Amino acid sequence: MELTEIRQQIDEIDGQIARLFGARMRLCAEAGAAKRQLGLPLYDPAREEQILAQREREAGAKLAPYARRLFALLLQLSKEYQGG
Amino acid sequence: MELTEIRQQIDEIDGQIARLFGARMRLCAEAGAAKRQLGLPLYDPAREEQILAQREREAGAKLAPYARRLFALLLQLSKEYQGG
Repeated sequence: MELTEIRQQIDEIDGQIARLFGARMRLCAEAGAAKRQLGLPLYDPAREEQILAQREREAGAKLAPYARRLFALLLQLSKEYQGG
Repeated sequence: MELTEIRQQIDEIDGQIARLFGARMRLCAEAGAAKRQLGLPLYDPAREEQILAQREREAGAKLAPYARRLFALLLQLSKEYQGG
């Protein structure tokens, strides 16, 4: 595949990731509101570890450490957004 | 929406992000190979800034700083993966 074509495909994927990221952040804000209403703590380390472990496992050996870092940041960003 | 339902939706989004992330990493490895073949530098700061600026702009004011951080990590991870 040519570099230009590869880049077009990367740009398309980035657009999809950006759209999903926006949806994820809005859902996490909703989850935060629901937790506050239920008197639950905003931070749930067990659920976080479950998410990271699942994403790592599904990514396969080669991509696992990268997937963990990506989802660790996603969790971090949602926490900051929930708190804001 | 109930917390359980919100979490199910987040999990579904995470699955889609994970799938796109894998595809992005593989395309970036291909881009790296193409650049090496063409004798182009692997690191292209102008393209990186273009990606970050576009994702920031499209995210809207509230999500812009979060989108920049997400895509900065995605770029970082692809560079590490290309180099490996």
